[in-house]
Amino acid sequence: MGYLRDNIEAMTGYTPGEQPPADACVVKLNTNENPYPPSPKVLKVLRDTDWVILRKYPDPMANRVRQVVAREWRIGREQVLCGNGSDELLTLVVRACVGGGDAIAYPTPTYSLYPVLAEIQGARSVEVPTRADFSPPLEELAAVRARLLIFCNPNAPTGFWTPPEDVARLADRFKGVLVVDEAYADFAPASAIPLLKDKLNVLVFRTLSKSYSLAGLRLGLAVGAPGLIAGLAKVKDSYNLDAVQIEAGAAALEDRAYTAAMVEKVRAERKRLAGRLEALGFAVVPSQANFLLAAVPGGDGRAWYEGLKAHGILVRYWNQPRLDDKLRITVGTPEGNDRLLDAVEALIKEAKA
Amino acid sequence: MGYLRDNIEAMTGYTPGEQPPADACVVKLNTNENPYPPSPKVLKVLRDTDWVILRKYPDPMANRVRQVVAREWRIGREQVLCGNGSDELLTLVVRACVGGGDAIAYPTPTYSLYPVLAEIQGARSVEVPTRADFSPPLEELAAVRARLLIFCNPNAPTGFWTPPEDVARLADRFKGVLVVDEAYADFAPASAIPLLKDKLNVLVFRTLSKSYSLAGLRLGLAVGAPGLIAGLAKVKDSYNLDAVQIEAGAAALEDRAYTAAMVEKVRAERKRLAGRLEALGFAVVPSQANFLLAAVPGGDGRAWYEGLKAHGILVRYWNQPRLDDKLRITVGTPEGNDRLLDAVEALIKEAKA
Repeated sequence: MGYLRDNIEAMTGYTPGEQPPADACVVKLNTNENPYPPSPKVLKVLRDTDWVILRKYPDPMANRVRQVVAREWRIGREQVLCGNGSDELLTLVVRACVGGGDAIAYPTPTYSLYPVLAEIQGARSVEVPTRADFSPPLEELAAVRARLLIFCNPNAPTGFWTPPEDVARLADRFKGVLVVDEAYADFAPASAIPLLKDKLNVLVFRTLSKSYSLAGLRLGLAVGAPGLIAGLAKVKDSYNLDAVQIEAGAAALEDRAYTAAMVEKVRAERKRLAGRLEALGFAVVPSQANFLLAAVPGGDGRAWYEGLKAHGILVRYWNQPRLDDKLRITVGTPEGNDRLLDAVEALIKEAKA
Repeated sequence: MGYLRDNIEAMTGYTPGEQPPADACVVKLNTNENPYPPSPKVLKVLRDTDWVILRKYPDPMANRVRQVVAREWRIGREQVLCGNGSDELLTLVVRACVGGGDAIAYPTPTYSLYPVLAEIQGARSVEVPTRADFSPPLEELAAVRARLLIFCNPNAPTGFWTPPEDVARLADRFKGVLVVDEAYADFAPASAIPLLKDKLNVLVFRTLSKSYSLAGLRLGLAVGAPGLIAGLAKVKDSYNLDAVQIEAGAAALEDRAYTAAMVEKVRAERKRLAGRLEALGFAVVPSQANFLLAAVPGGDGRAWYEGLKAHGILVRYWNQPRLDDKLRITVGTPEGNDRLLDAVEALIKEAKA
């Protein structure tokens, strides 16, 4: 008998997107980071706080952050839990709600962490394929027998967005816990939070990694029924957030105007980039996120991924059905996107030569 | 059927020590924080780093920290894993090595998080009482049938310390994974790391929360066999450390001279405080940690806890066998300890009056 559990021994684990060295001269459009800096107020908190407070343990519940969220989103503080990115919140909900042998359902393709979390817990994955246009089969999802249904909205890596009314209907009909993973919701027309706040079986997960330009701070937020939030709190590490996450995170959440402005810029570029890629022969899936899933001319996604990499542009490619003819491209700054488009044109020219 | 798993619904969770408001005028000797500030080099990194890097995801493996640890402790980088405090590392080792129904063993009394982690995982706790002097029964522990044995050394809340040679012998004879939780080892004569580095079934956990004065930063280190470290890495969240933890943590670990100096001060005060408490009628358990477990005059621990609190001194009390006649008192600054001793004298006078 080995020292690790058999399911852990057997699994490969999640593979994060490539992070080139800080000094590498590449345009990084592969992990859906925001191309703009974090709010100046966040940088000021980091610079000006007297960090001698790090000597002491932080607030176990990060109430400073919960208060801001409760105020901004008009919900109760007891409806909010903070985590180390929404990744930790996903881990917590699996540990709190799913036992060995139980089922976790999600539409596919989606965030590739979900099956990994099921594997770690010794749970079963129930994968429900989306339709040809990547829309989720809501009737089928509502009827799935599973302890947990994870619904990424807008979905990654497709960008497909389901309106809040449909999500609310799904919540009413699904018999287990519904997690709406809204990592990209700030880039979409609306969030499901207002419609879901009285539902006892729903958690909405948000993150500061995308719209708030704080992927490096690791701050995620779970919003939902107090009973579920209390369950997640039971299984979290006692002091799961550090004092810097709490102070900087609260400052970011208080500066919604800054985030809204950056989000607006990304949305404008999303539209421009999609149009230009279409004109160059890509088939772009309509996206309400900060990335585009685009089928490449000729259908060889890997060749395009490698070609762009040779031009100093990093995008994401998956060698799997429905995705291997596509690239997922994060929307960058106008300059970054132009460099991508230049590289695309160069590759098309090379192919013709 | 509820939304939470039955074992989660039933459990109460871990209770962290009280954290009074930042502006409260109390002497805080209840959660084993270091009374001295973190290294000035840590504060400089926080103030001077260009935190625009927070826009991007951090290094998933925190290699900057691993490198420093590997160099300072003369081990391979692949023998190191970073976590959000050693609490996260404890969670990871349970998830990686212990299935539902498996056993986790530990000598008692000890860190009250261990049984909580077993409960969350649906595992069994095998509690092995220490002897009357709080020394662990090493023969008995070595023979326990369990997937995991957690050995806190120096132990909390007793301060009892087992020398590395004995820990190495325990590692050789125990059939499962041995975790040596060395949260307080910098305050003890020696660490087990040099003796354990070639053993395949051992992990040593360290933390920056105590000796490095960084409880608020949440940085823990697991050191051990590469196979176990790789297993823990599989079950951790992809980006479990934020960029601030990585940069500030590396700076702290590089400034060992500062930490050594602060540790020396705490040790000197530990000796003085123990002597003074003994003179005042307390029976102090010999401690190699940064706290003292002391039986109170009269034997009513709770009354003393409340009496001290009324005097603005916060210490830790547990209402359980073998501990309810004692207090756990963190060693503070000379001034903080004097305030404690003054309060003790006042309480003795009040009792006589």
